[in-house]
Amino acid sequence: MSVMEISHRGPEFAQILQASQTRLRQLLAVPPEFHILYMQGGGLALNAAVPLNLSQGKGVDVVVSGSWSHKSLLEAGRYANAQAAADSRQGGAPGWPAPATWKCRADSAYVHFCANETIDGVEAPQWPDLRALGLPSCAVVDASSNILSRAIDWSRLGVVFAGAQKNTGPAGLTLVFVRDDLLGRALPTCPSVWNWASLAQQRSMVNTPPTYAIYIAGLMFEWIAQEGGVAEMERRALERSQRLYACIDASEGFYGNRVEPQARSRMNIPFHLKDPALTDTFVSQAHEAGLLQLKGHQSVGGLRASLYNAMPMSGVLALIDHMNAFARRYG
Amino acid sequence: MSVMEISHRGPEFAQILQASQTRLRQLLAVPPEFHILYMQGGGLALNAAVPLNLSQGKGVDVVVSGSWSHKSLLEAGRYANAQAAADSRQGGAPGWPAPATWKCRADSAYVHFCANETIDGVEAPQWPDLRALGLPSCAVVDASSNILSRAIDWSRLGVVFAGAQKNTGPAGLTLVFVRDDLLGRALPTCPSVWNWASLAQQRSMVNTPPTYAIYIAGLMFEWIAQEGGVAEMERRALERSQRLYACIDASEGFYGNRVEPQARSRMNIPFHLKDPALTDTFVSQAHEAGLLQLKGHQSVGGLRASLYNAMPMSGVLALIDHMNAFARRYG
Repeated sequence: MSVMEISHRGPEFAQILQASQTRLRQLLAVPPEFHILYMQGGGLALNAAVPLNLSQGKGVDVVVSGSWSHKSLLEAGRYANAQAAADSRQGGAPGWPAPATWKCRADSAYVHFCANETIDGVEAPQWPDLRALGLPSCAVVDASSNILSRAIDWSRLGVVFAGAQKNTGPAGLTLVFVRDDLLGRALPTCPSVWNWASLAQQRSMVNTPPTYAIYIAGLMFEWIAQEGGVAEMERRALERSQRLYACIDASEGFYGNRVEPQARSRMNIPFHLKDPALTDTFVSQAHEAGLLQLKGHQSVGGLRASLYNAMPMSGVLALIDHMNAFARRYG
Repeated sequence: MSVMEISHRGPEFAQILQASQTRLRQLLAVPPEFHILYMQGGGLALNAAVPLNLSQGKGVDVVVSGSWSHKSLLEAGRYANAQAAADSRQGGAPGWPAPATWKCRADSAYVHFCANETIDGVEAPQWPDLRALGLPSCAVVDASSNILSRAIDWSRLGVVFAGAQKNTGPAGLTLVFVRDDLLGRALPTCPSVWNWASLAQQRSMVNTPPTYAIYIAGLMFEWIAQEGGVAEMERRALERSQRLYACIDASEGFYGNRVEPQARSRMNIPFHLKDPALTDTFVSQAHEAGLLQLKGHQSVGGLRASLYNAMPMSGVLALIDHMNAFARRYG
């Protein structure tokens, strides 16, 4: 029987789930006081599940650094008094709001920020230490698109979540790390299937988990360990992205990236052509060369290269070759 | 690139999703006024998503026919004035409450029933026509464990949902059929990712759908069509289950099934040994013979054979041979 057919209650799947969580805990050095929960629904579900589990009728402060965190702010508003602690989308280049400028309320339930904005190509250079900023709240981090690409300092954090489909495994699985003392705060309207205390108690088996996605994510965790762990993933992410940004910056404006330099994402590199009329030609010629998924997100247009953990350096070099040849042809 | 890697927004996956829904619509003769939505979270998530989308502050009547519908009743109570319209768990053999005995309120938002109780082995012989019973409410049917095993008369229904992992495909995908006029009734606290109006409008792409599970479910739909469609699945389900019940009934009490005869499930056959002390021996000897997953659900114990669409007749005959040999050895 395939892992898609076996019961999620049987010893075979219990072993698959347990082994995957043990490896994940090791890769990210997750301390014992954090639970690892497997959920469904991706980042958008967590945008609701976080305030349902954690807001307790208090305020929620959201750092808006792009499209995703703006969605998080809107969704939190359904369940709590949510406000933007900062908003880098107000004019200027896309960037990461400096933590010293965040306006957080002292009695908020938590501060939410997005570690990497997939659409805007903005990544937090460091994760801020709220206590050093004089903020008592716990931090909730949406790390959907850069989890497992750098080490995490857990001492600063309350919750980290990540849809699996970027750096981790197939769509349908969501990783949630929750500090133990934050369990048991769910609103009465929190759906049973999203209640973190129940999920922790029943080892992510409140309902049938996405068994196959968990199996594949477990294989990804093993692969990351074999390749050298998160430190090696970080080294590769830096190498891949620096090479691509260098190509863009050396193109004398033929290609451009608008993000503030210090907040440029290592994962998602949105870029545009000086002549936007060439965008479709670029995409179709790239497709012919076997370079896929380069169209920008539907909400912003242009181009985007997503360089997740699974992308080999050879893929980046092939893209750079194509970009240089295209610039010579049309520049 | 595998279907696990491609973008859910690209034309390749759009084609996979569209083709799967077209085939599913054809297999179950789903009329145009019903939307087919792909969600995540299984039946337990829908136990919350249904009242969040449909209750509108009104009453909700739930027909309790076993463990699953009892869970549905409890979860609906988080969002609505939910009450049991009937409860077959009150004494006597497990069975299907006769629709004529249902106590539904005239002003309820809907009546919920479970078409097949996976744990209790109880299946609705027919789906009742609420209008014929003089009830104005629309019916919501949890068909998680018997979808695609018999035709559906859609004229009686408002919503049908089914977690994929029994008869349809891998865990992580949930099929939801919603009548068009029932969209737009969601409570303000309904998470965006569960809002049926948004899901219908955005063709189940409010967030990243479980792409691989959808791909595999699509292959299952094709397989069902090739094998002869839902009518053939129904014929096989009857044949499989009748043979197994006949074996139990002919065992002179060595094996037993407690469900009322007219409500015996074609999908899940719980059974027990006259001598419960032999249960573990039965399971381990079956396992040695390659007959897996026969342990009863943790909440009821005993034994259970789940005969979903993917189970071949040869599997049932092998089980029957094993049961007869075991009875001769220990009877």
